[in-house]
Amino acid sequence: MSKKINVGVIGTGRIGKMHTKNIVNNFINVNVKSVADIFVNDEIREWAANLGIENVYKDYKEILNDSEIDAVLICSSTDTHSQITIEAANAGKHIFCEKPIDYDIERIDAALDAVKEAGVKFQVGFNRRFDHNFKQVRDLVEEGKVGDVHIVKVTSRDPEAPPIDYVKVSGGIFLDMTIHDFDMVRYLTGSEVEEVYTNAAVLVDPAIGEAGDVDTAIITLKFANGAIGVIDNSRKAAYGYDQRVEVFGSKGGITVSNDTNNSAVLSTEGGVFSEKPKYFFIERYKDSFLTELTDFFDAVENDKETPVQGIDGLKPVLIGLAATKSYKEGRPVKISEIEL
Amino acid sequence: MSKKINVGVIGTGRIGKMHTKNIVNNFINVNVKSVADIFVNDEIREWAANLGIENVYKDYKEILNDSEIDAVLICSSTDTHSQITIEAANAGKHIFCEKPIDYDIERIDAALDAVKEAGVKFQVGFNRRFDHNFKQVRDLVEEGKVGDVHIVKVTSRDPEAPPIDYVKVSGGIFLDMTIHDFDMVRYLTGSEVEEVYTNAAVLVDPAIGEAGDVDTAIITLKFANGAIGVIDNSRKAAYGYDQRVEVFGSKGGITVSNDTNNSAVLSTEGGVFSEKPKYFFIERYKDSFLTELTDFFDAVENDKETPVQGIDGLKPVLIGLAATKSYKEGRPVKISEIEL
Amino acid sequence: MSKKINVGVIGTGRIGKMHTKNIVNNFINVNVKSVADIFVNDEIREWAANLGIENVYKDYKEILNDSEIDAVLICSSTDTHSQITIEAANAGKHIFCEKPIDYDIERIDAALDAVKEAGVKFQVGFNRRFDHNFKQVRDLVEEGKVGDVHIVKVTSRDPEAPPIDYVKVSGGIFLDMTIHDFDMVRYLTGSEVEEVYTNAAVLVDPAIGEAGDVDTAIITLKFANGAIGVIDNSRKAAYGYDQRVEVFGSKGGITVSNDTNNSAVLSTEGGVFSEKPKYFFIERYKDSFLTELTDFFDAVENDKETPVQGIDGLKPVLIGLAATKSYKEGRPVKISEIEL
Amino acid sequence: MSKKINVGVIGTGRIGKMHTKNIVNNFINVNVKSVADIFVNDEIREWAANLGIENVYKDYKEILNDSEIDAVLICSSTDTHSQITIEAANAGKHIFCEKPIDYDIERIDAALDAVKEAGVKFQVGFNRRFDHNFKQVRDLVEEGKVGDVHIVKVTSRDPEAPPIDYVKVSGGIFLDMTIHDFDMVRYLTGSEVEEVYTNAAVLVDPAIGEAGDVDTAIITLKFANGAIGVIDNSRKAAYGYDQRVEVFGSKGGITVSNDTNNSAVLSTEGGVFSEKPKYFFIERYKDSFLTELTDFFDAVENDKETPVQGIDGLKPVLIGLAATKSYKEGRPVKISEIEL
Repeated sequence: MSKKINVGVIGTGRIGKMHTKNIVNNFINVNVKSVADIFVNDEIREWAANLGIENVYKDYKEILNDSEIDAVLICSSTDTHSQITIEAANAGKHIFCEKPIDYDIERIDAALDAVKEAGVKFQVGFNRRFDHNFKQVRDLVEEGKVGDVHIVKVTSRDPEAPPIDYVKVSGGIFLDMTIHDFDMVRYLTGSEVEEVYTNAAVLVDPAIGEAGDVDTAIITLKFANGAIGVIDNSRKAAYGYDQRVEVFGSKGGITVSNDTNNSAVLSTEGGVFSEKPKYFFIERYKDSFLTELTDFFDAVENDKETPVQGIDGLKPVLIGLAATKSYKEGRPVKISEIEL
Repeated sequence: MSKKINVGVIGTGRIGKMHTKNIVNNFINVNVKSVADIFVNDEIREWAANLGIENVYKDYKEILNDSEIDAVLICSSTDTHSQITIEAANAGKHIFCEKPIDYDIERIDAALDAVKEAGVKFQVGFNRRFDHNFKQVRDLVEEGKVGDVHIVKVTSRDPEAPPIDYVKVSGGIFLDMTIHDFDMVRYLTGSEVEEVYTNAAVLVDPAIGEAGDVDTAIITLKFANGAIGVIDNSRKAAYGYDQRVEVFGSKGGITVSNDTNNSAVLSTEGGVFSEKPKYFFIERYKDSFLTELTDFFDAVENDKETPVQGIDGLKPVLIGLAATKSYKEGRPVKISEIEL
Repeated sequence: MSKKINVGVIGTGRIGKMHTKNIVNNFINVNVKSVADIFVNDEIREWAANLGIENVYKDYKEILNDSEIDAVLICSSTDTHSQITIEAANAGKHIFCEKPIDYDIERIDAALDAVKEAGVKFQVGFNRRFDHNFKQVRDLVEEGKVGDVHIVKVTSRDPEAPPIDYVKVSGGIFLDMTIHDFDMVRYLTGSEVEEVYTNAAVLVDPAIGEAGDVDTAIITLKFANGAIGVIDNSRKAAYGYDQRVEVFGSKGGITVSNDTNNSAVLSTEGGVFSEKPKYFFIERYKDSFLTELTDFFDAVENDKETPVQGIDGLKPVLIGLAATKSYKEGRPVKISEIEL
Repeated sequence: MSKKINVGVIGTGRIGKMHTKNIVNNFINVNVKSVADIFVNDEIREWAANLGIENVYKDYKEILNDSEIDAVLICSSTDTHSQITIEAANAGKHIFCEKPIDYDIERIDAALDAVKEAGVKFQVGFNRRFDHNFKQVRDLVEEGKVGDVHIVKVTSRDPEAPPIDYVKVSGGIFLDMTIHDFDMVRYLTGSEVEEVYTNAAVLVDPAIGEAGDVDTAIITLKFANGAIGVIDNSRKAAYGYDQRVEVFGSKGGITVSNDTNNSAVLSTEGGVFSEKPKYFFIERYKDSFLTELTDFFDAVENDKETPVQGIDGLKPVLIGLAATKSYKEGRPVKISEIEL
């Protein structure tokens, strides 16, 4: 058996912790040797000790300087992603980077250039591509079951708006939340978005508007292959996390429904009751978070292409910036206006 | 028991025949005394005789001149609706008019003015408001079950594109097909559309494009109450007539699925198979066509308000004209631009 | 056009009235000339007048003596069915008889003998065979979609127990309610029941037990073709009329779900709510009541076989008697024990 | 943190391997110190080494003799369960025993006596109680959502019949397959089965009949609390593993549907297609296998009651023996007849 892949996890917030636990519990050939967190404390140290992790650092550079480390997971705050990507690439580490790489196109380009030059593997954490439902839609589309794609629709609604402090630094709904949906429409159609028009409003919470953002949006899209699409978002669906897609084409259509914790249906005099969707992304996309790592480590170990490349990290940001501009200017915006 | 309402049906195409049969079979207090069709022939005469209809005319004016006739159903070709409405109103007949009243705003205004002056009942044939599913959505919205409406979505796809000859005179997809959806969003939200943006393409059949129309469209909407919405259309869904709506608000959401001819689900080694949606509008909206007449004759007999008034005939045409303009100019268009 | 079929309806209770209205509204070639009801009163007379029915009798013999009458619908109380069938057959009338023909095997045999001798058409009112869902199951089974039938399951639960006075004269749940399900399993499998075992209890209302009946039952069945089956009944399902079937075979299975008045699904913080099943048989089987008459009049007019024959009226009674005996004796009972 | 629980796994077939992997991957406080398998070979040794397991034995007694071992999982062949249970109890080990404990009542009694005397924890592997769907049904029943239970129904069909060699030693379908369903009805109703009647046949494969077993069965049940029930089984459902339950009571009913790998629905001209049920028990009950161990180790570590006790291992065997007897004698059989 080949030697284990040594991994360092940078950032031990909710996502960093989840990835770490997934690796420890599921990958025999992968060893989480070190974790780093600028806010390291006793709780993190105990958590790491329980998982048998050797090193807990405050400074991620200690991970990059460890020649035994083969790959890093960048799970720190968004504003550090591009910088750490560059440093990790320069240190010759394979990189799994949480989305988005950055909100700034130049910084993304710099990060992707560094990756390219170093020749390391690079994967962006668009985990929803690995979801059992959406992957099935993509597979059926690729098999030609719907023929040529005419319309793609994504419904993506969160169960709760994030704290206003987070909203203020989030980059706005289109870069923070819709970015996953921009990735999804590219994934489902296999085509690039060329133009967006944003119809948005502040309907959930006036404080979000005061923070300069919107909380409800419908974004229409034009694709390079001629298809058209629409995404609808809300920061707050009272019934939980609403995650559905539909692809419609010349031969038919595919829809998916939300996952629920059970399929029990209770019928009484008062009506017919069934379960709400799974609460939020950690529960809903649990398996996909594991699958994306499976593919990443497979790419590292067997020198394969990663399934979500640098361009897949860049494009949704471009679309997000165009969507933002469209909302502000009240007109359709071409992606090419942003790329310039 | 009160005397029967005497009715004349003008136009005996598919819709005119259906309405006539519905009346004969279901309304004890209503008598279809006469029908008129410019293309009257032996087949129509035999059909009318079998239903016990007294008179079959070539010229609808014979119906208008019959002082025993209380009400008319205008089911002739669209370009005659406004003119016949005016004449019927002047003759003091109550009017049930198939949609649309006209494509020309001035002619619609003239027709509605005539109706108003004559003080006759007037109802536009937006039958989908009477559909069991959509009415339930509307009722739940009115009861406040979803709270304030944030997003309304309508999917409306035909099973087959109409003949190209029809496409050429149809007024375009937005006035011919989407007009029902424009009525639906007004009905479901209880609010007026203020602005539309049209994203459309020719994906089903190039001949439709050559005829100056589109066959696939996504139209986003802004409402007076702050809500936003989206309609998606296709002239051809391979699996049949796709008619779904969704209303999402502060307290939750409502969706409906398509009606099918049966609920049988066959599970085999090859998969799980269920029934396609009902084929087209005659089958799908069968009951609603009956219900709209029930309400119309109730209004006539008991001097009530009709449930779909003149304004409801005008507004969807305005939205349709704005959607057309938006598509042609590639920008959002306010309804107020059309009204001027 | 051929001359109209003249019909007399005997018994103008709920079912008799429904059939009459269905004929008047839907069959151009059929004329309800006369109705008879032993409890005839002004309300019935007015109802008949409104439908344009010529004669309203107290004595059904006046219908049988009318040489212009071609066919009769026997909708009177169960204890009169076999006697009137014999008299109507002797009078040369075609017969549509509500289920059951009788509870007494000898009287059923006598009625069927009279029908045979007279050579008139005879159809029993097992309307559920004409239901859109169950007919589709039967069609798929006949097409071989499930291969050889191994298991058939019927769930049949009423929304409310009938009045105790009715329970006392009903012949018991197996002859009054399950009889429809006994017909259904014969219809779905295309095979005869050979043995039954009844597992039953009084769980809904002790008064039903005091009246000598049960209100909850599971009946297992063995079929001539080797298949096995099960029916479960309840006199009271809190959520409404529960009518489902399942056929399972060597190649797969078919299930159907309940019909509802609409497909709206409301999702809120409190859960996901959908519509209850249609309330009871008049609503649920509305279309099937019409379809069974279509087939009956087609058989009369065009000298075809009726779709539900005398044997189909006899067999479910035999099974019902066996089910009753099985419950009383606590052991499996062969149908052949009853036939002797 | 408390010291780890040391576990020995006896039997490393499919189930033994699955439990072992589940423990290694998910329980930080549990250590699989040793495994034993009478057919130990290099493949098992390598598998164990990869999981970091210290000892691999041929003789399970080496596990029982290891004073550091706290608990054992008995996953060996059924005929060894009761004997090893006795020895493990005598050795003071807590015991998780796969179902069934034995097919012989006296041997089960002896095993349970030994457990009782030793005062060790004992849990039987009825994993389906921990399934997300069935647990939800049980919870809703316990909360009184359906009121008093009137009818319980279990559908349990395998995707493929086992090899004939297995059928011959399986103890018969009622002890091998239905035993899970006997446990399920006890679990769902919270009441004991008092009488069974078995309606069964050989419809899937004549070879199963030649081996002295049946492959298709409907078993009706009477419960101590007055409820009645029915289980239907098939050794081969062409569409996969069919696992559904229904509980019906005075206030309503609960149903569950099968789990599928995804919720994608493809609609084309040919129909509407969705995913088949998950293939078989390893996939379908994946999470429940983990949850049952969570509860077992919780009981061991915190000196709690196990959730599936000795009586729960005994009762389904009694019912299975009664079901077998009922089939052979063609009559209802009381459980008390078996207990004597």
